[in-house]
Amino acid sequence: MSERHEVTRPQRTEADLADPAYRQGLVALLGVLAYGELVGFLTIAQEAGFAPSSRDKVTLARVASQEFGHYERLAARIEELGGDSHQAMAPFTRAVDDWHRRATPTDWSEALMKVYAGHSIANDFYREMSDLVDPDTRRLMRDALEDSGRVEFAAGELRRMIAADDKVAGRLALWGRRLIGEALSQAQRVAADNDDLIALLVDDGSGYGLDLGGWMHMFTRLTDAHTARMEALGLSA
Amino acid sequence: MSERHEVTRPQRTEADLADPAYRQGLVALLGVLAYGELVGFLTIAQEAGFAPSSRDKVTLARVASQEFGHYERLAARIEELGGDSHQAMAPFTRAVDDWHRRATPTDWSEALMKVYAGHSIANDFYREMSDLVDPDTRRLMRDALEDSGRVEFAAGELRRMIAADDKVAGRLALWGRRLIGEALSQAQRVAADNDDLIALLVDDGSGYGLDLGGWMHMFTRLTDAHTARMEALGLSA
Repeated sequence: MSERHEVTRPQRTEADLADPAYRQGLVALLGVLAYGELVGFLTIAQEAGFAPSSRDKVTLARVASQEFGHYERLAARIEELGGDSHQAMAPFTRAVDDWHRRATPTDWSEALMKVYAGHSIANDFYREMSDLVDPDTRRLMRDALEDSGRVEFAAGELRRMIAADDKVAGRLALWGRRLIGEALSQAQRVAADNDDLIALLVDDGSGYGLDLGGWMHMFTRLTDAHTARMEALGLSA
Repeated sequence: MSERHEVTRPQRTEADLADPAYRQGLVALLGVLAYGELVGFLTIAQEAGFAPSSRDKVTLARVASQEFGHYERLAARIEELGGDSHQAMAPFTRAVDDWHRRATPTDWSEALMKVYAGHSIANDFYREMSDLVDPDTRRLMRDALEDSGRVEFAAGELRRMIAADDKVAGRLALWGRRLIGEALSQAQRVAADNDDLIALLVDDGSGYGLDLGGWMHMFTRLTDAHTARMEALGLSA
């Protein structure tokens, strides 16, 4: 990921939790993240079906289990904030499900690339968003985004596959582009359709959230980091 | 399940762990059970993809996570016994994978029936086998077989579906028969192909394990319990 920017905008604090609009925005943000973790759990487990050995299956199963632990903590936080975790996830299930449907790997190398590129860009995105919330919620989000070696595991496997067969590189570069294109278009759909999220994340003059320039910079950081990840495998982004 | 039989045969004790042949048999038994839990974890997560609501997805994800916890404890026990967990699973991966391939649900009702009937008969089988091992290993096996409300959850959903649509019953009865037929044929294949398991589980005059009559009685108990489960849903077995 490119150099982290200095956070100079005003920071939300615990005091903001008293504001119902802020709480509603948080519940929405945690809702989409929670559903992402839940479905992430399910799809990692599905993709582990492609794993060639019991050792790889175990590695992915462990990752998936941790993902579910994250889901449970996020759901608990939603309830703490006075929300209902299933209601909070409901507005986002379609976009997240659609993303997974459009980005369904057909083999082990594509499954690994989905972990390596898709999981990473989603993580970068949520990490950026965690700058916009109060410190307690930020800590919880960052814990949920903690990568448990999964990306490193995927990178190692992908490097081996690319080294072993030079036709793999072109195919995976293409697949990587598709993953990211789908991810960005679903992310836009999620954000544009949800007033609570917009109120939380977009600066309408309150000084909180990102203004248009902030969003542009953020997307540049996300795509730069993606490009760097692809190049680290010797692939064009 | 039908009335549990009184265990009158000689019981294995901790002292038997000094016997390399016993340890080898145990490693094989825990290997097949561990691989079953690992793949069980993966397939429950896959089948949760059919779940209509985020609430049902969470229920199944929680069940799958517990399954993985069981896997980890079984794998740890294999290592404790001087085995390698992946080597221990290797002889069984094909039969277990084949079972899941032949018993892949095509919708939510079939996925639930696989949990309700398939999971239960496998559990009953391993519970019977746990009578044949030393007390520490037995405790571990029984913990791993602990049902965390999954069968009850599946039964409730299935009852609702059967009540709502009378064509469902016939289709599910057929699917239940197929599940069990495949399970029994793969189980036989597993047992017949593995000398370590046979030495552990079959009484060749040592007094440990089950003799032919014992096996017949055990299979009768398994199928009786299965029939009772199907009847509890108003289905013919």
